[in-house]
Amino acid sequence: MELQAVNFIGNDTSRNGDVFFKGYDPIKNKELEPAYPEASNEEISLAVEKAVKAFSLFRKTTAAQRQNFLQSIADEILMLGDDLIYCCMNETALSFDRLTGERTRTVNQLKMFADLITKDFWNDVRIDRAIPNKKPVPKKDIRQMQIPIGPVAVFGAGNFPLAFSVAGGDTASALAAGCPVVYKAHPGHPATSEMIAHAIIKAVKKSKMPDGVFSLVNGLSTRVGEKLVSNPNIKAVGFTGSFKGGKALFDLAALRDEPIPVYAEMGSTNPIFLLPMALRNNADYIVEGIINSFTLGSGQFCTNPGLIIISKSDDTSKFLEKLGKRTGLLSPAFMLSKRMKDNFENGINKLQSIKDVKVISKGIKALGSCETTSYLLETTAKQFVNNENLEMEVFGPSTLIVLAKDKNEIQTIATKLGGHLTASIHCNDEKELSEYMELVETLTYKVGRLIINDYPTGVEVCDSMHHGGPYPATSDVRFTSVGTAAIKRWLRPVSFQNFPERLLPDALKNSNPENIYRLIDGILKKA
Amino acid sequence: MELQAVNFIGNDTSRNGDVFFKGYDPIKNKELEPAYPEASNEEISLAVEKAVKAFSLFRKTTAAQRQNFLQSIADEILMLGDDLIYCCMNETALSFDRLTGERTRTVNQLKMFADLITKDFWNDVRIDRAIPNKKPVPKKDIRQMQIPIGPVAVFGAGNFPLAFSVAGGDTASALAAGCPVVYKAHPGHPATSEMIAHAIIKAVKKSKMPDGVFSLVNGLSTRVGEKLVSNPNIKAVGFTGSFKGGKALFDLAALRDEPIPVYAEMGSTNPIFLLPMALRNNADYIVEGIINSFTLGSGQFCTNPGLIIISKSDDTSKFLEKLGKRTGLLSPAFMLSKRMKDNFENGINKLQSIKDVKVISKGIKALGSCETTSYLLETTAKQFVNNENLEMEVFGPSTLIVLAKDKNEIQTIATKLGGHLTASIHCNDEKELSEYMELVETLTYKVGRLIINDYPTGVEVCDSMHHGGPYPATSDVRFTSVGTAAIKRWLRPVSFQNFPERLLPDALKNSNPENIYRLIDGILKKA
Repeated sequence: MELQAVNFIGNDTSRNGDVFFKGYDPIKNKELEPAYPEASNEEISLAVEKAVKAFSLFRKTTAAQRQNFLQSIADEILMLGDDLIYCCMNETALSFDRLTGERTRTVNQLKMFADLITKDFWNDVRIDRAIPNKKPVPKKDIRQMQIPIGPVAVFGAGNFPLAFSVAGGDTASALAAGCPVVYKAHPGHPATSEMIAHAIIKAVKKSKMPDGVFSLVNGLSTRVGEKLVSNPNIKAVGFTGSFKGGKALFDLAALRDEPIPVYAEMGSTNPIFLLPMALRNNADYIVEGIINSFTLGSGQFCTNPGLIIISKSDDTSKFLEKLGKRTGLLSPAFMLSKRMKDNFENGINKLQSIKDVKVISKGIKALGSCETTSYLLETTAKQFVNNENLEMEVFGPSTLIVLAKDKNEIQTIATKLGGHLTASIHCNDEKELSEYMELVETLTYKVGRLIINDYPTGVEVCDSMHHGGPYPATSDVRFTSVGTAAIKRWLRPVSFQNFPERLLPDALKNSNPENIYRLIDGILKKA
Repeated sequence: MELQAVNFIGNDTSRNGDVFFKGYDPIKNKELEPAYPEASNEEISLAVEKAVKAFSLFRKTTAAQRQNFLQSIADEILMLGDDLIYCCMNETALSFDRLTGERTRTVNQLKMFADLITKDFWNDVRIDRAIPNKKPVPKKDIRQMQIPIGPVAVFGAGNFPLAFSVAGGDTASALAAGCPVVYKAHPGHPATSEMIAHAIIKAVKKSKMPDGVFSLVNGLSTRVGEKLVSNPNIKAVGFTGSFKGGKALFDLAALRDEPIPVYAEMGSTNPIFLLPMALRNNADYIVEGIINSFTLGSGQFCTNPGLIIISKSDDTSKFLEKLGKRTGLLSPAFMLSKRMKDNFENGINKLQSIKDVKVISKGIKALGSCETTSYLLETTAKQFVNNENLEMEVFGPSTLIVLAKDKNEIQTIATKLGGHLTASIHCNDEKELSEYMELVETLTYKVGRLIINDYPTGVEVCDSMHHGGPYPATSDVRFTSVGTAAIKRWLRPVSFQNFPERLLPDALKNSNPENIYRLIDGILKKA
């Protein structure tokens, strides 16, 4: 595919702006062609205007039509072939295997949301039938379903150039819900974004969806995103990225004349607790697991485990020795960009400058300007609970060991923790875990996902996945950005009172033509 | 019951503040004894501190225990007998019948939420079982349920001294969810609030709930509410009241170090559209219905219909004549307070000062200082669409007729509308309605509840009720404050990965001891 370096304003390509930026090859250490135009304010307004028009048609589409549309996007992405993968490798330094895996996930997510909306449970339909002779007053016929919230803005993530970018989870779930998407492309992979946008627009046309159901605006400066989120016709925002970026959008949205929901997944340190008997009996498994988890994708995952809490025992020093040795063998890792690498190394330097924090092992020294060394650090429980900077995410391949004296200090650390996406506990067996149920309980109320004898990376995309968590992990603890429940972010309820049967939406008709579960007079059923 | 004029800091009564305020009898036009102490900052902090401690125990209670607690609150409220009603009548000028009805609703709401949490559908449980030999990677066992969000702040409403106050819908749903409540009493009915708080504390003790699961703080000044919402241990806010009050709390919560959800139900003008054939054939029914609806509770309902949109026809003048005549017969209405009456009359004066807006009929002239006259006003569609002030809520017994030339102008008005709790359409029959499906569609995306041939007041408390709507009707379009779905405001998801069966919460165990519906491997079932 020949790249055009354009914005997509609905089905039209457009390049009216006069500010340009380029992608960057972190491995070859050079700028990539072509230069991409930042969307002008007019282009952004036009994209939203088109989304508003498209919404009035898109919200009337059937689930089957939207299913077909999403499947068509998946097909078009696969049709791009490995050109997409190579293009993305150049822009991100991520490996062929990683990116083909991510493509599979992206395509599967599109299909998952496509299928979800034709299933029998997702719309939370509630029906209370009239009781005309009810005393003291007759009961009305009331029926509730979920409808799309309106045109939404989605921000692409730098660390997931496919699965959380142009046709990623946020876009897929919003389109499934019936919400047009104005997508703000991540400036780290503009060419990859353009390729996917072409695929989506092809699918829009093939499946006869309204022009404006999808737009893509480019931007390196924050102006583009700010302009988009400030537009009064945008009704919700999805974001995956840094705390700083997510919080800025949250604040902007709260200050609008009409405040709107912002779903910002902003990162987390994902503490892992190692219980004594696990350390004694499973040290090798745990060392390997931790090494793999904190270095996966050069540590550039929001589920990267950045904290390992250990209760000191006779086995501790042996365990740390093994972990340190393994860390020492780690190859240098390419980061997504020079900025990411600099941020990471600054973060490590800041950590090291804190009293009682020391680097206990380092991977092989990195040489390239976008490459980094992996780090294993250590501190005391006392220092950890007194310095909240030690809980901050350092985005990259590092993890911080926190040495607790005993079970009490472990509990103190857990109680002190802020909000995280996940926490993990490694135990020898059910018996050992059952002695730490206070820890389990505390962590349950600190995180979105609690993991036993496993690692936070490798987020399963399924009904039961909650990828979210208390602030500052996300801006909205009530919603997930991974899994089928992610569709709830783009829906809101509406009730119909005393409506003629024939004119009700299908989901609410007595005859239940969609054959879905509904809560009828307090009983969940398919009748 | 002898009134003590106290704050309730958990189970302890407390009056440390040095600022006092009194209730007011709008009918006798005099202050009521005793004087109530505003909660001091220390009392507010202590209430939240106790709520935090209580949360660690309350969240572990079973649904059956919380069911018993809520039922016990209902019982204790009934045990107060009609003393409660008389006390409340003095403070609000609401009638005996209205308040006994509201007490019934309050008690029924408590029982509804008590029962809800023992039902088989409310917790959105999702289970994906492990597939250890899945390729390319094994599938993990992941299980999701909803857990309480934490201690919450609830603000009482002036216009619902029982059903949306101390033990009202917000408190009932939060306690059902497992969230301790720190309640900010409405200063309009402090004695009523004290009586109910005593009843709740009795129930706390009888059902052995933790001290701190409920507190009540008094305050006339905004300081008390601000202090409460700013407390970092408060995790969500429920509010029913004015736009100004709700928006102030929303802004405050968004500016916290940790922003939290604010569910503010802020009011609405609840437009009613009268289609031509309905006007021709059902004029008498509609006149009576509109009169009853806009004057109910002296027009002090958030569902009060403040806008009537009519398509001009030969029948219009006759209809308006009837409506005007009926308005002329309306008795003066007592407002909740002198402030409400002044606000209402200022609102009417502002409306009248707008070009092309005129009062076409008035009820019998009010004489008492808290009494008001009812008003029927009229304007043109042109004026309406050009002046957004005409869409603002004027809280009290008035309604504004908007005369549209034709179907197109009706549609223009609908398209121009902001967010409302409800919209109603009166049609002659299904045939006439089917000619206005564009109007139906437009209104569906402007409101929380769409009503055919009925009136917005009289909100049914049931599974399918959505009492909410797009901004500025509420601060969060995704949630309702009436009906069983209101519990969702106080819950958030958490996932458990790879957990030993025996240590899982009951809702997630394979054996399904709670016998609830769960989404297991994509299939909704009770197995």
